[in-house]
Amino acid sequence: MRQRGVSTGFRALILGAAAGGGLPQWNCGCRNCNLARQGEIAPQTQSSLAVTGDGRHWTVLNASPDIRDQFTRTPALHPTGQRELPLSSVLVTNGDIDHVAGLLTLREMQPFTLLATAGIHDILSNNPIFDALNPEVVTRSTVTLEVPFSIAPGLQATLFPVPGKTPLYMERIGEEVRTDVIGDQTVGVKLEADGDVAYYIPGCAYLSPDLADRIDGADLVLFDGTLWRDDEMRLAGVGVKTGKRMGHMSMSGPEGSIAAFAPLDIGRKVYVHMNNTNPVFRPDAPERAEAEAAGWMIGQDGMEIQL
Amino acid sequence: MRQRGVSTGFRALILGAAAGGGLPQWNCGCRNCNLARQGEIAPQTQSSLAVTGDGRHWTVLNASPDIRDQFTRTPALHPTGQRELPLSSVLVTNGDIDHVAGLLTLREMQPFTLLATAGIHDILSNNPIFDALNPEVVTRSTVTLEVPFSIAPGLQATLFPVPGKTPLYMERIGEEVRTDVIGDQTVGVKLEADGDVAYYIPGCAYLSPDLADRIDGADLVLFDGTLWRDDEMRLAGVGVKTGKRMGHMSMSGPEGSIAAFAPLDIGRKVYVHMNNTNPVFRPDAPERAEAEAAGWMIGQDGMEIQL
Repeated sequence: MRQRGVSTGFRALILGAAAGGGLPQWNCGCRNCNLARQGEIAPQTQSSLAVTGDGRHWTVLNASPDIRDQFTRTPALHPTGQRELPLSSVLVTNGDIDHVAGLLTLREMQPFTLLATAGIHDILSNNPIFDALNPEVVTRSTVTLEVPFSIAPGLQATLFPVPGKTPLYMERIGEEVRTDVIGDQTVGVKLEADGDVAYYIPGCAYLSPDLADRIDGADLVLFDGTLWRDDEMRLAGVGVKTGKRMGHMSMSGPEGSIAAFAPLDIGRKVYVHMNNTNPVFRPDAPERAEAEAAGWMIGQDGMEIQL
Repeated sequence: MRQRGVSTGFRALILGAAAGGGLPQWNCGCRNCNLARQGEIAPQTQSSLAVTGDGRHWTVLNASPDIRDQFTRTPALHPTGQRELPLSSVLVTNGDIDHVAGLLTLREMQPFTLLATAGIHDILSNNPIFDALNPEVVTRSTVTLEVPFSIAPGLQATLFPVPGKTPLYMERIGEEVRTDVIGDQTVGVKLEADGDVAYYIPGCAYLSPDLADRIDGADLVLFDGTLWRDDEMRLAGVGVKTGKRMGHMSMSGPEGSIAAFAPLDIGRKVYVHMNNTNPVFRPDAPERAEAEAAGWMIGQDGMEIQL
């Protein structure tokens, strides 16, 4: 019998399956948010994934605003002493608030390595509040795109560029907003442990041919599931922005991820980073059945995936 | 029978009773944090208070990192429409992470007034990440010390200086840290509704004679209960800092708040902003009995106080 915490090989724990805002979002009265408040569907916290290659040392991919609650609910991440933790590193894949605000919670003189590209580190450095991560305790390590590195014992990672956009709070009034930038401010993560290959891509504006080629043949892909359809927020009456404007491709439709992934050979396909308006959060939604029929799993808080 | 939400007069809801880090703190294996993880004592979120003068319009005092969870658990603050909220304003009493990080969660194009002194607004302005609060939607209003203002319909507030220190993340290596600064970066709040007078002072380095005179005669004081004793974190094996070094007076001892408040005539005295190491979190602790015998209530998440 496998004992928790002593297995080897790649494991992932979805700490938070929702996009920025979570489910319910603090100010949102949409159908899903009300159902979550009433306990009719499961609440979901914001986007974060914990991964391990040896079952003992963990890396957290993206530090969501809900990270304190996520640590509390995850025994694998609990302290093993007065201030000892099974946490090796934290990596952020862009500068969005749902992925970096939780760094402010990780401030308690706890040693770990904070991994990001130069472009993402620059965003953090421009905000002195992140000095809460005392540089004498938390090492900021700059990762070069396309160069594999050790992220924790038994676990290798490689960052690669993904089409995306600059964080919303850095948009400037009057400036054109490009949502298809390929640089080092929005990245995906390739993870390798014991021969297994997984990809974590929580934000992606479109699946370019290069990106499709890259992930084809993987054992696991955790992918951007922000919206079911591009104009979903307008239809729900909670906003005017489309998925495209936010730098996220939709699940459905001819340009959606379900169609784009159909020709690829991928062991397991899991949606993460779902916006609170996404109908797939409802177990009885036809959209959820359609995604599952296409071979997708709908991620949820606490879900464990072992390769 | 009084119906929730339609009463008048001052009401306060403790959204979070713990100091920075919460209970349990993500990386802490102290006695209280382990008990909270095991469900033996009630978990507590970080420092925040909701207040109303008319039972319909609310102000949140301090935006803790746990604010999303706090809103979810507080029906009085739930949306009343697709994006309508009973929230008039948010006020922060210093620039500490446990009091401002939650502003990043309040970013979803939701109108409210963000109230703070010039000194605290400066701290926020120096961090572009807070531009997530779109200036076209969230009004930043600068409050002058000692000048009463309307904080919500039926509720008046006055800010006043309290001995404290600059936020930890703004301390500079090599510079002397003063923990007794009296300026506009650490403030207390006087609240007045319908003839009732309450004070909210979640951080206070010492009770000066001026401050004691100010609060004497109040109907309610919610006060800094960070530590039971000054060297508590060292004794718990989780840190070297004293309460004094952190700008917080302890509850016990000749210089503590229990002794300092003893001669004052105050209707109700409630501790808030307790550190996870504080023994008063344990219902059976002798320290808790001692505080209660001296007329103090130990604040906790969800506690409602009506005057």
